[in-house]
Amino acid sequence: MLSIAAATIPAHHNSIPLIQSIKKNRNNVRSLRIHARQGDVLVAEPPSPHKTQNRAAHLAESLLNFVHLHFDATTSSTAYARPVVDRRHKLADPETPVLSPKEDISTKWNEIHTSDYDNLLTPLQPWLRREIIKYGEFAQATYDGFDFDSFSEYCGSCRYNRQRFFEKLGLGKNGYEITKYIYAMSHVDVPRWLERSQLVDKSWSKDSNWMGYIAVSDNGETKRLGRRDIVVAWRGTVAPTEWFEDLQNKLEPIDELSGGEVKVEHGFRHIYTSKSETTRYNKLSASEQVMNEVKRLVKMYKEKGESVSLTITGHSLGGSLALLNAYEAAETIPDLPISVISFGAPRVGNVAFRDKLHQLGVKTLRVVVKQDLVPKTPGLMLNESLKKFEEITGNLDWVYTHVGAEMKVDVRSSPYLKRKFDLLGFHSLETYLHLVDGFVSSESSFREHAKRDVALVNKACGMLVDELRVPESWYQLEHKGLVKNAYGRWVKPSRDSEDIPSLHHIHETPTPPCLE
Amino acid sequence: MLSIAAATIPAHHNSIPLIQSIKKNRNNVRSLRIHARQGDVLVAEPPSPHKTQNRAAHLAESLLNFVHLHFDATTSSTAYARPVVDRRHKLADPETPVLSPKEDISTKWNEIHTSDYDNLLTPLQPWLRREIIKYGEFAQATYDGFDFDSFSEYCGSCRYNRQRFFEKLGLGKNGYEITKYIYAMSHVDVPRWLERSQLVDKSWSKDSNWMGYIAVSDNGETKRLGRRDIVVAWRGTVAPTEWFEDLQNKLEPIDELSGGEVKVEHGFRHIYTSKSETTRYNKLSASEQVMNEVKRLVKMYKEKGESVSLTITGHSLGGSLALLNAYEAAETIPDLPISVISFGAPRVGNVAFRDKLHQLGVKTLRVVVKQDLVPKTPGLMLNESLKKFEEITGNLDWVYTHVGAEMKVDVRSSPYLKRKFDLLGFHSLETYLHLVDGFVSSESSFREHAKRDVALVNKACGMLVDELRVPESWYQLEHKGLVKNAYGRWVKPSRDSEDIPSLHHIHETPTPPCLE
Repeated sequence: MLSIAAATIPAHHNSIPLIQSIKKNRNNVRSLRIHARQGDVLVAEPPSPHKTQNRAAHLAESLLNFVHLHFDATTSSTAYARPVVDRRHKLADPETPVLSPKEDISTKWNEIHTSDYDNLLTPLQPWLRREIIKYGEFAQATYDGFDFDSFSEYCGSCRYNRQRFFEKLGLGKNGYEITKYIYAMSHVDVPRWLERSQLVDKSWSKDSNWMGYIAVSDNGETKRLGRRDIVVAWRGTVAPTEWFEDLQNKLEPIDELSGGEVKVEHGFRHIYTSKSETTRYNKLSASEQVMNEVKRLVKMYKEKGESVSLTITGHSLGGSLALLNAYEAAETIPDLPISVISFGAPRVGNVAFRDKLHQLGVKTLRVVVKQDLVPKTPGLMLNESLKKFEEITGNLDWVYTHVGAEMKVDVRSSPYLKRKFDLLGFHSLETYLHLVDGFVSSESSFREHAKRDVALVNKACGMLVDELRVPESWYQLEHKGLVKNAYGRWVKPSRDSEDIPSLHHIHETPTPPCLE
Repeated sequence: MLSIAAATIPAHHNSIPLIQSIKKNRNNVRSLRIHARQGDVLVAEPPSPHKTQNRAAHLAESLLNFVHLHFDATTSSTAYARPVVDRRHKLADPETPVLSPKEDISTKWNEIHTSDYDNLLTPLQPWLRREIIKYGEFAQATYDGFDFDSFSEYCGSCRYNRQRFFEKLGLGKNGYEITKYIYAMSHVDVPRWLERSQLVDKSWSKDSNWMGYIAVSDNGETKRLGRRDIVVAWRGTVAPTEWFEDLQNKLEPIDELSGGEVKVEHGFRHIYTSKSETTRYNKLSASEQVMNEVKRLVKMYKEKGESVSLTITGHSLGGSLALLNAYEAAETIPDLPISVISFGAPRVGNVAFRDKLHQLGVKTLRVVVKQDLVPKTPGLMLNESLKKFEEITGNLDWVYTHVGAEMKVDVRSSPYLKRKFDLLGFHSLETYLHLVDGFVSSESSFREHAKRDVALVNKACGMLVDELRVPESWYQLEHKGLVKNAYGRWVKPSRDSEDIPSLHHIHETPTPPCLE
């Protein structure tokens, strides 16, 4: 079955490492398991070998079967045969406004915290759909505003300062203002998550990447929501293949508080907590930066007598950081309703991590594209589905476990998307947002009145069917940012001084934003 | 040696077919030769097999040696070791104007036609350098203005109408005005030279591609040049690998006039001469279109008592069409000085074709980048260098022969260019123009005061050294031409009505351009 998957991967995708790693995992189920058990973070005693030899073989086989089924569902040729889709939807009518009017949800929002997400998902409540997309667009903006240009001395920073970030990215009317940017160290144990300038000498930072932002709802949005909403949006990685390889499958204790039981993936924790006195932007870790600002904002608005909530969002790696962030916020800030809305996020921690998050009252909604492989990592085989083998595996604190409510959307539900295997396309956040926009329930077809601009899907991939005539990966700068100067030469203009990263952004407490 | 070349080709270049075809050629020298001799266009009797068997083996071996040497010079690792280059040139100082003042060359230009190009090349006369670049930029404009977007209903056409073409491409002050566009049929025997819209039903043309234009010098430029200069610029192909494979290595008689002796490559001739009554843009062939217009202009200006010249330019395939065009013009228009300035053009015809062009007085300057493989085709092995084997090969009218004066420029002469093997980069017209700008003679180093904007080299390739910080292949539209409309949707705006291809452009005689 895996060979089918390999054969249908388009040649232009850098997907060989993934397939290799899957194959490797298949061949090394036992050694992988042993590796995980012998790691220094393990607590449970391994079951006696002679007692479980046959059972272990059975486990290994079952795991393989699981993987088989799993890939059947996503990549076999029958699964990808184009279903008979009712194409009555107008294909991206260019004169349908994309914005739905936003209703007052001040009474509805509490449902999330009183009755959990699950009750709102079948069918998906329209107001919640709009909120999910709103937060997803906060996460998408962390990509759209990021400087990926390795020839730029500002590579790895945000292209715009926080005051005009939303406006520049077409989100000027979203009712939020950014109060702080977040930076994380790029010299961490996930070697390829970062972007780094080739101009080491001149670079704005040798050590850090811009990792997202903290924003607060303005008075209008606050009224609509029934509370002052603090948002943290975490940037992820664009190319999932890169850190598929880099994830170390190493669980380690999240902190000293939990007695070592609560464990999370080493790489994610490292990005979240690393700092160094010798850096400019990471004298404080990402964790410290974000927690300082959230605490400041919570205090400020609570002192004004307002209801305050925290919503943390992120895609891919950003979704993992969102969970770590939520855990820390829940542990340190009392009486703060905390939600996580993540997209295509991998597993982060073990069962104890999940249980503790639930216990702390963090409400998590994980949006997952059924065909996306990233949410299946780490722990492609060593995950919560092993529960049925507990008898032989013993305590499962060494397996990765997903957290919260899952909202599973399916590429095949959309009449606008190609059916071919597309590793990047399945993982792309814009694909996620498109599928959320069309989602009613897992039994329903794509929502007829979905209005979000379909063309956005192809911003950074080629998932849209050709009939739509939207170019692949169209989100690009004119002439890659070069302009012809007065002397007739093509040059990269220096960045507007107001958009040059500055230590002010990170080390000084900002003035409270104008929230009118 | 070839394996070195193959090993150093960057993975992202679609160069495998080329290498395969070279390898194939190596293995099939004899069969290739036999194939060429057995073609229906042959005149010479093949030498008796038993008499020449050993000699033929010797020839085959010598050919292989030739190819070896040949690749040694361009792709071996020693040849590509970075030479010690004096980097005193300021790396693309952004405040040096790119335009040199243009001097009056009315007395100089005749040197080309009285003493031939050769005398002007060692060292290269500065005024001629500027003229070569001027014509090269005419050829470059045929790429820059072309609609490559297969989702566009105008794919394969020019993006701008002829009145504003130069202005849109930054050539508004070049002293020329376009009087006519040229179209050629796309259903020809060189299967992959064309661009075709995926929107067959709506397409502006199912059968034709825009292939270039005819322009005339205005009064100011005419005064500077000492004659009214008619220019024909032919579009080529961007990706050389495509038609490397497609060239059929089939020489056929150019017309009935020459008694069948003068032969040219079938594919080039087919593009130049194909027409069909059922098409919109090719009821006349490219040949007829261009000749009608050139004759009209020559007549018009000669009747005014002016001196008139014809300069034909093109890059790659466009250079081949330029030669065919020059041949026809020389045969049919008496007393017209005709020059061809071609860039990276392949061979076009046999020895008789070359001799006839010389005899007709056509002055040809072929600019060739030493490392570019395209000028070595067709006839990578079956070419004019076989002359020394004439004894065994007999009459050489079945081999391909270059025409005119060669100006050979070398990638290694420029301190701005990378030294690695780059099939597309070596062939790129902007690489050619850069090297011409720095050329003095084959013994001199890169010209110190070369002012042409170095950044242009990377328009469609990645040849510039990283220190220059010019992104690779930067010539691109913002968002691939999508814009956000009033409803918030990303759409491809319809082309300005004045830029929509129209039959007026091709079938009606244009009014004489305003030449003030």
